[in-house]
Amino acid sequence: MTFEPIALAAPGVRRLSPYQPGKPLDALEREYGVRNAIKLASNENPLGPGPAAVAAARAALEGVGRYPDGAGFGLKRALAARLGVDAMQITLGNGSNDVLELVARAFLGPDTEVVYAAHAFAVYALVTQAAGARAVVVPARDWGHDLDAMRAAVGPRTRLVFIANPNNPTGTWLRAGDLEGFVRAVPENVLVVVDEAYFEYVDEPDYPDTVGWIAKYPNLITTRTFSKIHGLAGLRVGYGVSHPAVADLLNRVRQPFNVNSAAAAAAEAALRDEAHVARSRDMNRAGLRQLTEGTKKLGLPHIPSTANFVCIEVGQAAAVYEGLLREGVIVRPVANYGMPRHLRVTVGLPEENERFLKALDKVLGGSRR
Amino acid sequence: MTFEPIALAAPGVRRLSPYQPGKPLDALEREYGVRNAIKLASNENPLGPGPAAVAAARAALEGVGRYPDGAGFGLKRALAARLGVDAMQITLGNGSNDVLELVARAFLGPDTEVVYAAHAFAVYALVTQAAGARAVVVPARDWGHDLDAMRAAVGPRTRLVFIANPNNPTGTWLRAGDLEGFVRAVPENVLVVVDEAYFEYVDEPDYPDTVGWIAKYPNLITTRTFSKIHGLAGLRVGYGVSHPAVADLLNRVRQPFNVNSAAAAAAEAALRDEAHVARSRDMNRAGLRQLTEGTKKLGLPHIPSTANFVCIEVGQAAAVYEGLLREGVIVRPVANYGMPRHLRVTVGLPEENERFLKALDKVLGGSRR
Repeated sequence: MTFEPIALAAPGVRRLSPYQPGKPLDALEREYGVRNAIKLASNENPLGPGPAAVAAARAALEGVGRYPDGAGFGLKRALAARLGVDAMQITLGNGSNDVLELVARAFLGPDTEVVYAAHAFAVYALVTQAAGARAVVVPARDWGHDLDAMRAAVGPRTRLVFIANPNNPTGTWLRAGDLEGFVRAVPENVLVVVDEAYFEYVDEPDYPDTVGWIAKYPNLITTRTFSKIHGLAGLRVGYGVSHPAVADLLNRVRQPFNVNSAAAAAAEAALRDEAHVARSRDMNRAGLRQLTEGTKKLGLPHIPSTANFVCIEVGQAAAVYEGLLREGVIVRPVANYGMPRHLRVTVGLPEENERFLKALDKVLGGSRR
Repeated sequence: MTFEPIALAAPGVRRLSPYQPGKPLDALEREYGVRNAIKLASNENPLGPGPAAVAAARAALEGVGRYPDGAGFGLKRALAARLGVDAMQITLGNGSNDVLELVARAFLGPDTEVVYAAHAFAVYALVTQAAGARAVVVPARDWGHDLDAMRAAVGPRTRLVFIANPNNPTGTWLRAGDLEGFVRAVPENVLVVVDEAYFEYVDEPDYPDTVGWIAKYPNLITTRTFSKIHGLAGLRVGYGVSHPAVADLLNRVRQPFNVNSAAAAAAEAALRDEAHVARSRDMNRAGLRQLTEGTKKLGLPHIPSTANFVCIEVGQAAAVYEGLLREGVIVRPVANYGMPRHLRVTVGLPEENERFLKALDKVLGGSRR
């Protein structure tokens, strides 16, 4: 008898392909023999965390012989005060990915449907499939969520809608009036997750803060993260804000020690470090301009973005991606998002953006000649 | 219309009660007005991590602006070399709890059964229920796993057996011959998880190292952790070792960045720090003797243990637990494990063990008078 564990796997798991992270720097240097490579591939803050967050994590290391506080008392209290909600409305996650997965595991099953947009963040598809639920993928409009079509796609079996605002990888965003109209129109027994991982970067007057809507729409769940503007991707902290009864269910599924002690301490300090957030936001705004103006000069269109990355239409993206790797620049191919002509580029330090633009010019010049 | 999210929850989640962690020290001091409280409640290493592990975590904090290596290259390579397995056989977890949950999510569903013993680690019941599977709980023999009865409980719907060796909270353990006989007798389409969270503490000649059995029994999954003897409970790292095809399925369900950067670095350093492990093991052996001899003098029986904790039969355990709290000593009540007459006490530093014994004498003296 041959041992075939895949035959024993849960139905949703059998065809699951894991999430593909960006290529790590050391892997590039090993495989391509380049040095001083730069990575603009994972939407990280190029400034990293602020010094206060690092100092808090370092202090917490002294106590890591003990389990973390499973209730996340300090971090939840700080978040609740900052967001103007009750601590009972918060679910802490090992990154906001963890919260997205908790929502799927708490509410989805084989007889449920999930609505999300084409080109939306890959994790929505993964958690839907792992839970054995059916995905209803709604075509995009100008690369962004088509809320009218998404509303029409909500049916009697729909349990959950995922909305990314702004969306990764497209960078597109939704205005307050449009999004609230959607949430109002959806039946209360359909949960709406608004993934705001890039919330703090957005610099648009009509961009909504959906946490303030939860009191009115109890089926709304807002997720955010410390991985992006707070620069703590490596420590893994995110959170969901919701009606307390929803948070109660998410916390039942949550692993009791899902957020580690160093991460919780760093996140609490990062929340207070508004100067680091402001500095990161300012640098991002300038860098986004640098990237879009630079690529315009190369004759390349881009999708307007309000996040810390931008999708540039380069043509044969797979070849350009490879060419950039040989120049020691890692960006993100998005063919798996149905975007084979684009590359997603994270805003880096000014000199990194410049190096990317020069490398891109070189690679494209080569392919055009 | 009333908003009732519990009606929307997945069936297994509706009746789920979350895992109850031990009471945190600061919560005790706040609630009881005591100072200098000690915690012998969560089976942590009272020495904490070794200095090399802390130094490695501290160095890793410099890079936490970046996502962790999703493939866990360095830590898996180190584990593979140490264990004599291939890196493809390893699944990293955010604590070994995470691995136990990954197994449940990858292989369980509403039409499957899971066999485990009464008084076994609470997480087996939680992950079974969350996956909507049916638990078959086999009565214990002398507080330990009754392998004959467990074997008889394996039926056509059994997908998974959880075995804890040694078991938490009882401290009981299984001998190599008995356990291998069980694994050999179980059909290959039933996965057997052997949870070895306390592996490094065990000081018994017949205690098995099941990693070496996986080549022979491809349905075997061994789980271990850095939370116990390595003193890294607060950073969250555990792992599973299995047939590569099983690991492939677990890694499909795994969140790509489930282990944080500081944790991975600390674990790799901890693995090399054999002196710290030896020191911790020696201290534990002496402390276990101190606790069992001390409680024997008080006329209290205990369940023989080979881990870093011991269950002492104190009678009205809830009242004794409360009395100890008032003395500033936190231990673990185990009534939720069907053991209302016992308290589980973690081996602490020599002076902590002494303080516990004195507090226990005082509390019992009070209740006996």
